[in-house]
Amino acid sequence: MVEIFSQYENSLTLKLLLLSLFVFVTSVPSVEARIRRYRWEVKYEYRSPDCYKKLVITINGRAPGPTILAQQGDTIVVELNNSLLTENVAIHWHGIRQIGTPWFDGTEGVTQCPILPGDTFTYKFVVDRPGTYLYHAHYGMQRQAGLYGSIRVALPDGEAEPFSYDYDRSIILNDWYHQSTSEQAVGLSSKPFVWVEEPQSLLIQGRGKFDCTSSPSIGDGLCNASSPDCSPYAMTVVPGKPYRLRIGRLPALAALRLEIEGHNMSVVEADGHNVEPFVVKNLFIYSGETYSVLIKADQNPSRNYWMSSKVVSRNSTTPNGLAIFNYYPNHPRRNPPTVPPAGPLSNDLAPRVAQSNAIKSHQGYALPPPLKPDRVIVLLNTQNEINGYKRWSLNNVSLKFPHTPYVIALGEKLLHSFDQTPPPDSYDVANYDIYSIANNTNAIASNSIYRLQFNTIVDIILQNANTMTADNSVTHPWHLHGHDFWVLGYGTGKFDVNSDPKKYNLVNPIMKNTVPLHPYGWTALRIRADNPGVWAFHCHIEYHFYMGMGVVFEEGIERLGRLPSSVMGCGATKAFHRP
Amino acid sequence: MVEIFSQYENSLTLKLLLLSLFVFVTSVPSVEARIRRYRWEVKYEYRSPDCYKKLVITINGRAPGPTILAQQGDTIVVELNNSLLTENVAIHWHGIRQIGTPWFDGTEGVTQCPILPGDTFTYKFVVDRPGTYLYHAHYGMQRQAGLYGSIRVALPDGEAEPFSYDYDRSIILNDWYHQSTSEQAVGLSSKPFVWVEEPQSLLIQGRGKFDCTSSPSIGDGLCNASSPDCSPYAMTVVPGKPYRLRIGRLPALAALRLEIEGHNMSVVEADGHNVEPFVVKNLFIYSGETYSVLIKADQNPSRNYWMSSKVVSRNSTTPNGLAIFNYYPNHPRRNPPTVPPAGPLSNDLAPRVAQSNAIKSHQGYALPPPLKPDRVIVLLNTQNEINGYKRWSLNNVSLKFPHTPYVIALGEKLLHSFDQTPPPDSYDVANYDIYSIANNTNAIASNSIYRLQFNTIVDIILQNANTMTADNSVTHPWHLHGHDFWVLGYGTGKFDVNSDPKKYNLVNPIMKNTVPLHPYGWTALRIRADNPGVWAFHCHIEYHFYMGMGVVFEEGIERLGRLPSSVMGCGATKAFHRP
Repeated sequence: MVEIFSQYENSLTLKLLLLSLFVFVTSVPSVEARIRRYRWEVKYEYRSPDCYKKLVITINGRAPGPTILAQQGDTIVVELNNSLLTENVAIHWHGIRQIGTPWFDGTEGVTQCPILPGDTFTYKFVVDRPGTYLYHAHYGMQRQAGLYGSIRVALPDGEAEPFSYDYDRSIILNDWYHQSTSEQAVGLSSKPFVWVEEPQSLLIQGRGKFDCTSSPSIGDGLCNASSPDCSPYAMTVVPGKPYRLRIGRLPALAALRLEIEGHNMSVVEADGHNVEPFVVKNLFIYSGETYSVLIKADQNPSRNYWMSSKVVSRNSTTPNGLAIFNYYPNHPRRNPPTVPPAGPLSNDLAPRVAQSNAIKSHQGYALPPPLKPDRVIVLLNTQNEINGYKRWSLNNVSLKFPHTPYVIALGEKLLHSFDQTPPPDSYDVANYDIYSIANNTNAIASNSIYRLQFNTIVDIILQNANTMTADNSVTHPWHLHGHDFWVLGYGTGKFDVNSDPKKYNLVNPIMKNTVPLHPYGWTALRIRADNPGVWAFHCHIEYHFYMGMGVVFEEGIERLGRLPSSVMGCGATKAFHRP
Repeated sequence: MVEIFSQYENSLTLKLLLLSLFVFVTSVPSVEARIRRYRWEVKYEYRSPDCYKKLVITINGRAPGPTILAQQGDTIVVELNNSLLTENVAIHWHGIRQIGTPWFDGTEGVTQCPILPGDTFTYKFVVDRPGTYLYHAHYGMQRQAGLYGSIRVALPDGEAEPFSYDYDRSIILNDWYHQSTSEQAVGLSSKPFVWVEEPQSLLIQGRGKFDCTSSPSIGDGLCNASSPDCSPYAMTVVPGKPYRLRIGRLPALAALRLEIEGHNMSVVEADGHNVEPFVVKNLFIYSGETYSVLIKADQNPSRNYWMSSKVVSRNSTTPNGLAIFNYYPNHPRRNPPTVPPAGPLSNDLAPRVAQSNAIKSHQGYALPPPLKPDRVIVLLNTQNEINGYKRWSLNNVSLKFPHTPYVIALGEKLLHSFDQTPPPDSYDVANYDIYSIANNTNAIASNSIYRLQFNTIVDIILQNANTMTADNSVTHPWHLHGHDFWVLGYGTGKFDVNSDPKKYNLVNPIMKNTVPLHPYGWTALRIRADNPGVWAFHCHIEYHFYMGMGVVFEEGIERLGRLPSSVMGCGATKAFHRP
C-alpha cells in the first residue's frame, strides 16, 4: 500500500511552495529557528464543541490548543499564564522524553508543583525525536476540560522518512462529557461510587454533535444544534494527492476506531517511531497513542466522504463521531451521500489484538532491544475497594501522590515526604485467578515508588484481570513518561514468566510510549533505565488514573543537576526559607 | 419591647441546665477551655439545598459549615485541609479584627497565599470581642459555592449583656445560584458582559425551595422537590420563652428583609456591638452584616409561623425564602395555616434608610468617636468600562490584586510587587454629576493601596452614584477588615465636605464592620488606624468585589513581627530560597 505514494517526490522546496499557495493547508515548521517560543494564556471560556454549551479550558482562546510545530533538536519554550480563577494547572508534553529536563514533564505530583492562578510558568525542553506527539493537562482531570493539543516534530533538513506524501494533516480524537471535571471527580470519590457513564459525544479535532432533542438537555437552553462550534470538522483534500494524517488520541475513557469511508490507511508511524507499513480500513487507537497514516485521495472526486470514530471495547451508547473528508472543490459542509460506515462490532476483540501484533518497527529503523532484562516487574491490574472507595491498583497498591512531587522530594533530599518502602515487583501469581472477581481486601493506597538502578534493563509485564464485575475485564492504555519502551509482545491469559518470554519479539519490536493492555491479557514491555528523573507510568483513561491506576519509576536522580526553583513551591518546598 | 424579657434571669447556670435538658437546643461554649481547636476538611460534595442538585463546598460534610462557639478572649485554631481537587482556598473570619495576626485574616491576595489542594493550613487567632460573626471563603467567588458559617462569641463568665433571653439561636440568610462560580466568573469577565441575573432561590440556614416544575430545570433530573436537603429549616421554640436570634447575612447579591410572621423583633446587637434596642417587624439586612434580635414566643401556640426572607432594593424575580418558626410541640414540618407575609415593597427605600439611622450604640456601651479626623478619604462608587470589560471603581480605580499578597509584600519588603503610587483621596467633586450615567473613560485597574499613618483618625465617605444604566443606583454593603468603624451618618445626594460633617452623630454612633451605602446616597465612617496590618475594604456583593469594587488600607505594617511562613508561597515568595 505504501508504495503507491513513492512516485511523489518528497521535495521540501516544492512542498513549501504548494503549501503557501493552498488555502486549506496548515503550516510546516520554518527550518531556521531553533528556539520556538509560545505565550499561552489558559482560561475558562464557554464553548459548544458538540453543540452543548459548557465551560472549556482554552489556550489563547482555542480548544484544542494551538499545534506546536518544530524540527528535531529544537528547543520549545512555553510561557504559560494561568488565568483560571481558583484552579491551578500543569501541562504534560506527551511523548517528549525530557532528557535532562525531567522537571518540565508537566506531571503535577510527580515532576512539579501546580501553577497557581496568576502565575506564569515557563516550560523549556528539547524535542529530540521527529514524530507526532501530544500535550495535555496533567492535574486533577483537567485534560477532560479540553486542555490539549498536538506537537508535530519534523526531521532535520535533508533527512527523509521512509515514506512520502504531499501534505501533512493533524487531528485529535476525543470523547466529551457535559459534566465538569469536578462533578465527575466527586462521583468517582464518593461512597457509594458514582460512575461517569458513557461520554455524551465523540469529538474529531474538537468538534462533535450531541442530539439537542435528547432528554435531559432538551429545553435547558444550553444545546444549539446550529452553533458554529459544532459544525463537523472538514479535512479538505485535493483529488489524487497523497496525505499524511497524524492522529492523536486523548479520550478520557473510550478506545476508538477511526475509519475514512472508502479509503484505506497505511500505518507508517506510531508514537514517533517508523512502522513497517501495513494497511487498515479501521484504525484502532487508544487514549495516549499517536499514529501517522498515509491516505491517497483516490476515490470519486465528485463527493465528500465520512470520517467516523466509534467507541470500541465497551457497549457504549455514545453515537459515532463524524467529520467530513472533503474532496476539493466540493463544499466542505456538504454531507456525503452515504450512511456513515458502521465498522466492526464494538466488542470484537480479535481485530484489535491483531492490529497490536501487526505494529512492528520499520526495517532499517529497528533498534533491537537488549536481549535480557536485569529486573522484571509484573503489574497485576485490579479494581479494588479501599476504605469503601472504589480504586484501581497494581499489585494491590493504589497510587496516591505525595504532598511534595517526587522529582523535588528526591532532588532536594526530602525523603520523609513519601513512603520509602518500594511496592512489590509481582503479585501472588500462583494463587491469583485473573478470571474471578478481584477479592483484594488487602489493597492499600500508597505513594511508594519503584527505584530502578541506572542504565539497567527492566521488563514491565502488565497483567490484566477481572474487574469487580463478574466476567468483565477492560482495556487499559498504559502510558510511560520519559521513555519509549520496546513492545515485546501481547498474550492472552496469565503471563508465564518461564515460557512467555520465549515468544518475545526481539528482532523488530516497535518502540512506543503508550500501549494497550487487552482484556484478560498481558503486554510485555522493556526499557533501559537511562533517563535521569522520576516518571509516571499509568493507565491513560483519565478516570482510572484518578482512581489510582499508575506507578512511578525513579532512575538516576543523583545524576540530575540543580532543580529549577520554578517547579517548587508546594509541600515541603512551600514558601521561601528565611536567610 | 426589650423590657418584656428582663423578667428572665440571665443566669448562666440555669441556662446550662435548661440547655442540656432541651433536645432542640444548640450548645453553648464551655467556660473552661481557652484554646478551641477545629479540624476542617473542605471539599466538593453534591447537595440540593433548594432541591436542585449541584456541587457545594462543604466543611466536614456540612454546608453551611459548623458554628464556631467561643468565649471572649479564646484562641481559635482551625486546621483547614483543602480536599478540593484542583482549586485553592482561603477562609476569612468576618468581623474578627485579627489584632496582632493580620496574616490570618484569610483574604487571598491581601493577607495570605491561597491554600493548595492537599495542604493543611492552620489559622490561629483570638476572638477579642463578644458577639455574632461569620466566616466564609475569600478566594475567587467560592463563598457563593456554600463555604460559610457562623461564629458566636460569648461574654466572659460573670459578665452580662444589657438584655436577657433564655435561648440562643443562629441562622444565616443567603441567596443561591445554580451556576458554578466558574460559570458566573466567566460571564462577568466576558466581552460582552454576561450578568449573573437574579438568584434562583433564597436560603435560610442553608435551605430553600426552587420550583422543580419551572423551566429550564424541568426534566433535567437534577431537581427533586422531596429531597431532604431542601425541607424548610425549622426553628423550634417553647411557647412563652424569650429567644436571642443571631442572624448573619452572606448573599452574593441581594439585600434582604427578614420577617417572622406575627412576631416583633427587638434589635439588640449589630456586628458584635450592643444596640440601643428598637423594635422592627421587618429587619433589613445586607450582605456581611450580623444582628441579634430578641423574640418572644408569645403568639398562639397551637400553630407554626412563617419566617420569610425577601429580596429588597432590586426588582427581583426570586421567590421569598421560607422557614418555619415552630412552636413546640407542633410538628416542625407542619406548614403554618397562613399565606407567608408579603412585607414592604422591594423598591421602598425609606424604611431601609430609617433602619440604618435607627441603629445607635446602646447607652452605657457607646465608645464615642474622636471628634475630628486627621484625613478624609471620599470614595466615589461607579461602574465603568475598562478595556471593554465592565468593572466597578472607587475614584476611577478598580481593584486588581497583585501577585504577592500585600501583607507579605510589605512585611518582606517586596515593594516592587505592587504599584506604590497611592490611589486618589477624592474625585472631581465639583464637576461630577452623581445622577448621570458614569462616563469615567479614564478609569484604570490598579493594585495601589491607601497607606494610613498609624494611630491617626481617618474618615471614609462612601459616595454612591448612577451606574452605567440610566436612573439606576444600587445599594452596596461595604465591609471593612481588621476594624470596627463608627457610623457617623447617612445622607442623600452628593456629600458636602463642609456642611455634612456638622450633622454627624458623635454621641452614640454604632460601631460596625459592614454598612450599607444607599442608592444616590452617602455613608460616613470613622476609624482609628491602630491595627497593624493590611485590610481590605470592599463591597460585600460577591460579584461587585470580583469586578474590582474595593480598596486596601495599610497601617503600622512596620510594627508587625515576623510573618509566619505558612501564609507565603506565592508570587515573590513562591518556592524556597536556596541556602
